Amino acid sequence: MRAVVLLSGGLDSATLLALARKQGYQCHALSFAYGQRHRAELDAASRIARELGAAEHRVIDIPALGEHGGSALTDRGIAVPEKPGTGIPVTYVPARNTVFLALALAWAEVIEARDIFIGVNAIDYSGYPDCRPEFIAAFQSLANLATKAGVEGRGFNIHAPLIDMTKADIIGTGMRLGVDYSLTVSCYQADEAGRACGRCDACRLRAAGFAEAGYADPTRYR
Amino acid sequence: MRAVVLLSGGLDSATLLALARKQGYQCHALSFAYGQRHRAELDAASRIARELGAAEHRVIDIPALGEHGGSALTDRGIAVPEKPGTGIPVTYVPARNTVFLALALAWAEVIEARDIFIGVNAIDYSGYPDCRPEFIAAFQSLANLATKAGVEGRGFNIHAPLIDMTKADIIGTGMRLGVDYSLTVSCYQADEAGRACGRCDACRLRAAGFAEAGYADPTRYR
Repeated sequence: MRAVVLLSGGLDSATLLALARKQGYQCHALSFAYGQRHRAELDAASRIARELGAAEHRVIDIPALGEHGGSALTDRGIAVPEKPGTGIPVTYVPARNTVFLALALAWAEVIEARDIFIGVNAIDYSGYPDCRPEFIAAFQSLANLATKAGVEGRGFNIHAPLIDMTKADIIGTGMRLGVDYSLTVSCYQADEAGRACGRCDACRLRAAGFAEAGYADPTRYR
Repeated sequence: MRAVVLLSGGLDSATLLALARKQGYQCHALSFAYGQRHRAELDAASRIARELGAAEHRVIDIPALGEHGGSALTDRGIAVPEKPGTGIPVTYVPARNTVFLALALAWAEVIEARDIFIGVNAIDYSGYPDCRPEFIAAFQSLANLATKAGVEGRGFNIHAPLIDMTKADIIGTGMRLGVDYSLTVSCYQADEAGRACGRCDACRLRAAGFAEAGYADPTRYR
């Protein structure tokens, strides 16, 4: 039973891959190079895919998503915030999860996978519109209209098992599944070795999650 | 008033661009290089964008869509059919229009365009699931859930004005708008100079369209 699993190299998607493996899926891990500020998370994704027994790990280059601009994650002209703001943050990348799921769907149809896993999270989700349950449901409907497999009745399921979990829940789940979180990179501005800044939104959420879950934080800080 | 217009270099999307221009949009034309069998259609797209007064023409490289395989359009191991078949043809590229619209949406959000034009056609559409009105409607709903602009109430409209037209209707519309169809390439296996085979599905549909519309066929055949 094949699945495409979106793998960023962060804490959430490592937990996602462990969950999909636990459910017995043969996992085809998929990452994207889209002009992120650092490649450390892609290196992390490769290590995690190997460590957690993915059948395959593919990296799709989609530099256009970064070149469009408009996000602090891909545009060096926009500073990464160090304090939580209100509303949708500047780290929002326009239509990112729509693009990622579209490419995952294309690959899934070719390899005859019916299941796509994405590690979005609506609780500690930093306010991104494309991390909400209604977005995931809408994409699943679209997938089944858009494809030959969908039209012929072999429907797609978009799984977002982390969507209602807190960061502490996610960490607890992963620890029980044996995920080595020292391999993961969450920081928005990690250095080339994957060491975290400890100050950005993503670092704060992650550190608070380990504290709340009651585990020592294995993050490598610089 | 800005719009993103998907431009393949073929007859339909040239007509689409002319229609969007006629409606007063400042048109940002978008093409994709995804491992098509020939680049002639991208060269055609550039000429058409210039000729029809697009504000800008951008080509996004997305080789992964071709590397996934599974289509006669991108996989040299699968022959392009020369007779119409039944069902969804082998020229179907998995999830292609979903990927194209996702990337168009990302660009539209950055440049603050609210309108996206796509030249899909459900009449002479060769059986592709992602050319149907229900697919377009589902993508528009998704776009308004997926994006910051959508959530903040500046919604997107996906325009598919050719969707109910026959090939002859499209050609008649374009001729009235002054489209020079000798610039366009429809053939699935055009040569490097953009000359058509005259035998594939796309060539047959196009030739029949000119005949039915009562115009001389300006296609350059090899």
